[in-house]
Amino acid sequence: MSKLTDVPKRILIGRALRSDRLGETLLPKRIALPVFASDPLSSVAYAPGEVLLVLSIAGVSAYHFSPWIAVAVVVLMFTVVASYRQNVHAYPSGGGDYEVANTNLGPKAGLTVASALLVDYVLTVAVSIASGIENLGSAIPFVVEHKVFCAIAVIVLLTLMNLRGVKESGKLFAIPTYVFVTGVFLMIAWGAFRGIVLGDTMKAPTADFTIKAEHQGLAGFALVFLLLRAFSSGCAALTGVEAISNGVPAFRKPKSKNAASTLAAMGLLAVTMFCGIIALAMATNVRMAERPAHDLLENGVAVGSDYVQNPVISQVAEAVFGSGSFLFIVLAAATALVLFLAANTAYNGFPLLGSILAQDRYLPRQLHTRGDRLAFSNGIVLLAGAAILLIWIYGADSTRLIQLYIVGVFVSFTLSQTGMVRHWNRHLATEKDQAKRRHMVRSRAINAFGAFFTGLVLVVVLGTKFTHGAWVALLGMVIFYATMSAIRKHYDRVAEEIAAPEGPSDDSVRPSRVHSVVLISKIHRPTLRALAYAKLMRSDSLEALSVNVDPAETKALRDEWERRGFTVPLKILDSPYREITRPVIEYVKGLRRESPRDVVSVIIPEYVVGHWYEHLLHNQSALRLKGRLLFTPGVMVTSVPYQLESSEVAKKRARRRSEWTAPGSVRRGPAEQRPKEPSGPSRPSGPSGPSGPSGPKR
Amino acid sequence: MSKLTDVPKRILIGRALRSDRLGETLLPKRIALPVFASDPLSSVAYAPGEVLLVLSIAGVSAYHFSPWIAVAVVVLMFTVVASYRQNVHAYPSGGGDYEVANTNLGPKAGLTVASALLVDYVLTVAVSIASGIENLGSAIPFVVEHKVFCAIAVIVLLTLMNLRGVKESGKLFAIPTYVFVTGVFLMIAWGAFRGIVLGDTMKAPTADFTIKAEHQGLAGFALVFLLLRAFSSGCAALTGVEAISNGVPAFRKPKSKNAASTLAAMGLLAVTMFCGIIALAMATNVRMAERPAHDLLENGVAVGSDYVQNPVISQVAEAVFGSGSFLFIVLAAATALVLFLAANTAYNGFPLLGSILAQDRYLPRQLHTRGDRLAFSNGIVLLAGAAILLIWIYGADSTRLIQLYIVGVFVSFTLSQTGMVRHWNRHLATEKDQAKRRHMVRSRAINAFGAFFTGLVLVVVLGTKFTHGAWVALLGMVIFYATMSAIRKHYDRVAEEIAAPEGPSDDSVRPSRVHSVVLISKIHRPTLRALAYAKLMRSDSLEALSVNVDPAETKALRDEWERRGFTVPLKILDSPYREITRPVIEYVKGLRRESPRDVVSVIIPEYVVGHWYEHLLHNQSALRLKGRLLFTPGVMVTSVPYQLESSEVAKKRARRRSEWTAPGSVRRGPAEQRPKEPSGPSRPSGPSGPSGPSGPKR
Repeated sequence: MSKLTDVPKRILIGRALRSDRLGETLLPKRIALPVFASDPLSSVAYAPGEVLLVLSIAGVSAYHFSPWIAVAVVVLMFTVVASYRQNVHAYPSGGGDYEVANTNLGPKAGLTVASALLVDYVLTVAVSIASGIENLGSAIPFVVEHKVFCAIAVIVLLTLMNLRGVKESGKLFAIPTYVFVTGVFLMIAWGAFRGIVLGDTMKAPTADFTIKAEHQGLAGFALVFLLLRAFSSGCAALTGVEAISNGVPAFRKPKSKNAASTLAAMGLLAVTMFCGIIALAMATNVRMAERPAHDLLENGVAVGSDYVQNPVISQVAEAVFGSGSFLFIVLAAATALVLFLAANTAYNGFPLLGSILAQDRYLPRQLHTRGDRLAFSNGIVLLAGAAILLIWIYGADSTRLIQLYIVGVFVSFTLSQTGMVRHWNRHLATEKDQAKRRHMVRSRAINAFGAFFTGLVLVVVLGTKFTHGAWVALLGMVIFYATMSAIRKHYDRVAEEIAAPEGPSDDSVRPSRVHSVVLISKIHRPTLRALAYAKLMRSDSLEALSVNVDPAETKALRDEWERRGFTVPLKILDSPYREITRPVIEYVKGLRRESPRDVVSVIIPEYVVGHWYEHLLHNQSALRLKGRLLFTPGVMVTSVPYQLESSEVAKKRARRRSEWTAPGSVRRGPAEQRPKEPSGPSRPSGPSGPSGPSGPKR
Repeated sequence: MSKLTDVPKRILIGRALRSDRLGETLLPKRIALPVFASDPLSSVAYAPGEVLLVLSIAGVSAYHFSPWIAVAVVVLMFTVVASYRQNVHAYPSGGGDYEVANTNLGPKAGLTVASALLVDYVLTVAVSIASGIENLGSAIPFVVEHKVFCAIAVIVLLTLMNLRGVKESGKLFAIPTYVFVTGVFLMIAWGAFRGIVLGDTMKAPTADFTIKAEHQGLAGFALVFLLLRAFSSGCAALTGVEAISNGVPAFRKPKSKNAASTLAAMGLLAVTMFCGIIALAMATNVRMAERPAHDLLENGVAVGSDYVQNPVISQVAEAVFGSGSFLFIVLAAATALVLFLAANTAYNGFPLLGSILAQDRYLPRQLHTRGDRLAFSNGIVLLAGAAILLIWIYGADSTRLIQLYIVGVFVSFTLSQTGMVRHWNRHLATEKDQAKRRHMVRSRAINAFGAFFTGLVLVVVLGTKFTHGAWVALLGMVIFYATMSAIRKHYDRVAEEIAAPEGPSDDSVRPSRVHSVVLISKIHRPTLRALAYAKLMRSDSLEALSVNVDPAETKALRDEWERRGFTVPLKILDSPYREITRPVIEYVKGLRRESPRDVVSVIIPEYVVGHWYEHLLHNQSALRLKGRLLFTPGVMVTSVPYQLESSEVAKKRARRRSEWTAPGSVRRGPAEQRPKEPSGPSRPSGPSGPSGPSGPKR
């Protein structure tokens, strides 16, 4: 990061945590909960509203179905939580759904899950931000008036934060999350107290509105369909449950146990808040319409397009705490903040998943290297770009965005649960211990039910939402899937091409001698150094090579060569047309032709400068020449760097870079805690993507 | 260029001419004239109009001054031509004004001329295209209705042509230029015949209009000022005269003589056409106003903003040949075409001057290498960008653009002529032969007068046009000047820093031994090759180095190493945090610390792939590592390339590139004809800009 922006950051959040000190930061449950659960907890801010919204299509009368839908969501939530508690115990490595599906159902299933999750990360950002803006808007009108602009602004802000590699601190997550949870519970309690004990009648701002039902007196299949749609909207409350199963390594010991109980706590909190808000909404007669402008009637007249429909949670808060009251403002702020944090989790999850995929060569290798700034930046920018696009297209309207949402979640839920069933089957085949077997059978039952239920929901979601936008999510998944398998194919092809032949521990053609050539432009320190180094490599022959593009200067060079009494012979290539590259290439090729089994080592003195613009002023021809030489077989190209004073700048920059912490490091846990990732079949034969040391070790 | 676009081009204009066959294409005078003179000749298409336009400010009555202004322009033209005939003889190298000023008046003057010329090239494009569009518009209404769009379209077209490196053929220039010249002369002759012999009255379309004078009955200083302004607008006819003096090397022998006579012919043609058009304009009562919409009156009413004021040449043609007549159309087309060719000459001049400047280290060195695609592309894109910007800002209005024009030309005229005077003085100091002396004195007199006259015009131009836009041109010059001297300073600073110490023909610290390290990721062909090559370089010690980012894979590597019975010791670096770069750098630094006088040679196996997207999938970590290693002193970095099958593609691409011909090669003439360029004072001590062979030879 640039020095300028660096200083204030250092002041603000202290020196960036170096990844090799991650070991010190293991999360206690009370911190882990907010870190991992901000996404599912925050979703109660929009999920209840979506349920009422869909129901309103059949008119207010349909609202009385909402408790049943809430029940269904609760059941689903418990199922999913119970299932994932099994995952957490079976896979403490934190590989998450991708790992489970990949190991038990094979790479295709794994890749599908991966694509689904990637899409979902994008949507998490889009939906959370949109909804956060709406909640903020219920307190600050300006925000809601400039929805799209504000939403994009927040995304850009988050992106910059993450690009800068802000150290993700647990506390940063804890405070707003706990404020939010407390606020909601306070609201529920106070609301219940006022309603039941004091017997107040609390009225939501929309209580007096009536709803023009699109389909009055819906019944039979149509009604069922509507209820199912309402249900699948409610399922938004489940997004992000899997986050914890990815984060096990970040927990304190006993990791699995702690993760499991955190998972349970999270589920409990989520459903209570979800139901509480639905109940209050009923009690305060909140009215939500899918197309408020035209279906919400105030004394029989449509409220019109300039009416802003506030989220259920804020309407309820207004009814319970009173409009503009302190608690109302606090809750609105906390809600928005938690939603933004939820979006931020995607910023960590996306590149993290990316690095795991890179490990299995579905993405460029360098994405794997831990905390590789470049790689993470790419991931983050891609994520932000996609999210901004969606926000733009859908006018930052959370209701419309939610139509695309959760398809991905349930794809991965279903596959991961199915995978777990396989997992238990495999173990049961070998396991003898009865007690263990009983336990496994139980787990399998849970996962089997989880797989069945989530699968069912997936079908429902697709059925009810496909035309409403789910197809977009599917399209996104297909694109990710196609790209990643193409990349994998490329790596496999290369792996085959470069596989080492058995037998002689040597390249098929064994080179015999090496012929060294030092490229000389004129005599200065860099060339002197290059010469000195070249001499040290006792190659079979050594000569200095220069291209004559200017007779006068060539003569000058020759004379100085004499004068200084260099022992290395100086060879001059003619180039009447002032070309550099071609003569050299031709000469090298010539050497190879004379003795095909020899190797030519071309030694190039190079400047090292500090600024990109200085770089524009140097080495260009050298770079081009090197580029060409690499295509010439039997050549090795050696750069002898000469560090100019200005290079100090760049050295400092590089040092700063190396102190950068990758986003999501906290939730990933320290590296040594991560065992080897699952092996896709062709894994062992994998090519060393980036040649050099970074290759297959990644 | 991409294969796809390549094929059709090959078909259209045949295989691109390779620069080393330029020798075959020397220009006979009849071809040289159109190649070099399309700019000055084409300017008669707008210059006369500008004169009338300015005069009209004082009302139609002022038109009767136009012959006198024409005379002034003619005198100026003869002066300039006469002066440049001296240049051509004195500097047959084709260095042009920059060379003359640089050699005789020192680098500062040279740089000023250079900046002036660069700005002027931009304006040549802008003005010629704008005026070409207007002429085309007089025949095709659509064009004039979408002036800006069409103008930019043409610029883009020219840019693409030049980026592609279209072979600049003399004929391509000859035909339209000669058609244009013939057309104009035919018009003048036929007009004179009709007017004088047949006594027809020819009426321009604007003949019946009256002009509302902004300043009726202007007199005294005001009038003089107006006349001077009209004169400086007329001077637009002189732009591009210097082109020939740059192109001497492209002429057939005797080069200087041929160039001189071509120059004379060009001048003669230009002035005749200029005067002819002015005369016809008078005879046919052409009416031009600076703000036609509001100053041109038809029966006392302003014609209004939707009126299009056609260029004088087309109005005259309409009067002489008849509206819409065949000859009228032909002339309009030829005019437009010649103007576009004139713009194209800037596309050649700009990068050509750039390469000469690069030679004197005012611009990045690589711009110098002849036909360096990259360099020329940059120059061309810069030129096009600036021109498009001007076209955009000034609404493709040639009249407004001309206000910025010719400042540059006259700056370079003046300085170059002054330089010539110095030149002769120098020679007279030594010359003994009386005949030669007499000749020199004569030349000096001519150049002195030229310097004086052009200097005077420069003052007039600045005085009359500064507020009208000339300041923009000056600003541009200042920017170019500042940038270029900054670059030069950088190169000089570096040159000092790296200057080789006298005495021992060796680097100050004499290294003693070299320690080679081969980076191994896993065992495959690239690594095998790297190992084999490394063994050939009999360095004092050789070891294989690998980073342990994944225990399992590291073990696998170690086992295979054993199994294959490699003799080279395998060193494993631990990296619990999956980093590649840092451990390696640390290790290398460690080696250096142990024995500071040793050199470490790091050998990296590298893939060579064909497509950029493949490149994204490989070598990234290797590249980053190399980047960091270059900052570590006492290190040499060796890449051992392994060409993957796909690299063939890139090889082909590279080969095609190397067959590319730089724009303007024809006018530059074959390289071996170009002697050493002028030496700026600090030239000999110049640094090797791009290190490697391309360095100081450039």
